[in-house]
Amino acid sequence: MDKSKVKERTIVERLTIIDIAKLSGVGVTTVSRAINNHPDINEETKAMVMRVIKENHYVPNNSARNLKRSASRTIAILIRGITNPFFNPMINVFEKEIQNKKYSFILHRVDENQNEVEVAIELVKEKRLRGIVFLGGTFSHSREKLKQLTVPFVLSTIGMTELSELKEHSYVTVDDYMESYKMVDYLCGLGHKRIAIITDPRADVNIGKLRYEGYKKALEDHGIEFDEQLVRWMKEDVESYSMINGYKVTKELLDSQLEFTAVYAIADSLAIGACKAIFEAGKRVPEDYSVAGYDGLDMSFYYNPSITTIKQPVEEMAEETIKILFDLIHKKIKHEHKIFPAELLVRESTKSLS
Amino acid sequence: MDKSKVKERTIVERLTIIDIAKLSGVGVTTVSRAINNHPDINEETKAMVMRVIKENHYVPNNSARNLKRSASRTIAILIRGITNPFFNPMINVFEKEIQNKKYSFILHRVDENQNEVEVAIELVKEKRLRGIVFLGGTFSHSREKLKQLTVPFVLSTIGMTELSELKEHSYVTVDDYMESYKMVDYLCGLGHKRIAIITDPRADVNIGKLRYEGYKKALEDHGIEFDEQLVRWMKEDVESYSMINGYKVTKELLDSQLEFTAVYAIADSLAIGACKAIFEAGKRVPEDYSVAGYDGLDMSFYYNPSITTIKQPVEEMAEETIKILFDLIHKKIKHEHKIFPAELLVRESTKSLS
Repeated sequence: MDKSKVKERTIVERLTIIDIAKLSGVGVTTVSRAINNHPDINEETKAMVMRVIKENHYVPNNSARNLKRSASRTIAILIRGITNPFFNPMINVFEKEIQNKKYSFILHRVDENQNEVEVAIELVKEKRLRGIVFLGGTFSHSREKLKQLTVPFVLSTIGMTELSELKEHSYVTVDDYMESYKMVDYLCGLGHKRIAIITDPRADVNIGKLRYEGYKKALEDHGIEFDEQLVRWMKEDVESYSMINGYKVTKELLDSQLEFTAVYAIADSLAIGACKAIFEAGKRVPEDYSVAGYDGLDMSFYYNPSITTIKQPVEEMAEETIKILFDLIHKKIKHEHKIFPAELLVRESTKSLS
Repeated sequence: MDKSKVKERTIVERLTIIDIAKLSGVGVTTVSRAINNHPDINEETKAMVMRVIKENHYVPNNSARNLKRSASRTIAILIRGITNPFFNPMINVFEKEIQNKKYSFILHRVDENQNEVEVAIELVKEKRLRGIVFLGGTFSHSREKLKQLTVPFVLSTIGMTELSELKEHSYVTVDDYMESYKMVDYLCGLGHKRIAIITDPRADVNIGKLRYEGYKKALEDHGIEFDEQLVRWMKEDVESYSMINGYKVTKELLDSQLEFTAVYAIADSLAIGACKAIFEAGKRVPEDYSVAGYDGLDMSFYYNPSITTIKQPVEEMAEETIKILFDLIHKKIKHEHKIFPAELLVRESTKSLS
């Protein structure tokens, strides 16, 4: 018999709470209540039970106690695109904040083809979670589906395409439509009229749609004709929002011989990949092409040239996510919506056409 | 009374296994054995108990069953420097591999001033883990301390300064001394004699020591005098192995007016920070200074200029880590040591002095 079997057996056989009940002349439930500081127990009875426990050197079943402790103190972070560096500082904050509250957390990958709500419902069953953070990716689910989620959750940095559908839930985000508009408005202001965009092909359901719509609206407001050929989709067979994806898409764009003077990528990682493709073609940034990103990764500052971007306040957003989640867990609020401002950082990778 | 209290109470009061025992005319332990497919139970008794369970629509206590299931299928990854992008692809692999095996995993931060073995011992108690991966950072612990760890563990990408001390444990690593030697040998071969190194101040206990020793040995073999002034330590008040750390250290080095022609940083993130500082000083890479890194991050390829580096096969190392861990869990092996070869990638950031 291997060791794990021995261990299981020990746990199964150690039902000595029954002995304590007999010795105390009360029911097992009463003993449980005494041990667990339950309010529904007479103080005298409790004192008596605790005395019996002490006299008999009884150690409350650790498995059960651990179960209760760990089951009630676990948060799951469901994340799409776990290697996207955008999430790094957020995970860092989540981890610190959750540990500070003496909770533990499970980081759980959601694959491209998985429904995160179904994954969450399954996780709740398995792990008896106290709360969930949905991080990144798409989020379009029916109200009915969401109602099956019986634990508090917060949607964090998820494109809110249908805010009205989600108004009874909590979320933390930036206004992706407005912020994207801001960037393209800035590029148009530099004189660019042929601005390619690298965006998300699954544009009906996520931040890709909002950032794309902001792009179109800015062009329209500047009286610039929209050219569908300049809309470039991330490759679906390559990791999304990655440098290599931006690199491949831009290589194709350059090979197409289409005329353009600026590339707006809806993520800094894509923008860095775009720069690499431009360099490999023997061209310069920003002298030959302006390149703009989105997110405000540290890398966008350290890159050469530094990348003009929209900086999301990721640390603050992560802190707020956890604050809201614990307010929900402690029933201090019903729901909360927090939309953070982002900042246009003008750097070396973009320049005026004139 | 709030809802969480109600829930606790339900769990505590639902001890109906006792009812099944009474109805079956056997002890509680026997019922447990029947439910849990324990070998030590008579087949007839088991069939009878299962019939009683079925007839009475008894649902075995889910909490207890969940406890056993989740407790026995959890792996903890203890990680120093959770935001170091070096770990990203590894975490990605861990997550996928562990999920494939229907285990879940906990990602746990270890702070600079914490002892990871103590953290692990605590976690094992709380979470009843089946296995542990120690990822990154230092690892110098007494044999006695390690013996307190009662679950299988693998040390992954941790500098093995005292291999003999760890020979009864499992680890996956590269030969940091040799690989570092290879890089500095290459730089010397380009004609560089004044090579600054950015390394780890806690050099007595980790990869910093090995990479530093490799640097010294290569200089020696090329007959180049070692100059302590060119040894630059990462700042202790800034995140270690970060771009900003490399940036700050290199800024100081440039301000010192010391003569040097190359910077060897013991991590790509430090090397990228070094480049940024050089650009800000109005100098070029590699025309004015050669810069070399270590690790082979994706970013080192996409950077401008691309960074000469030592590429560790991180995905393979992560896969091997999990393979060894599960071999340990299933008692297929006692321990295993795997040292992977790394590759010198010569790119744009280094050039010959002549």
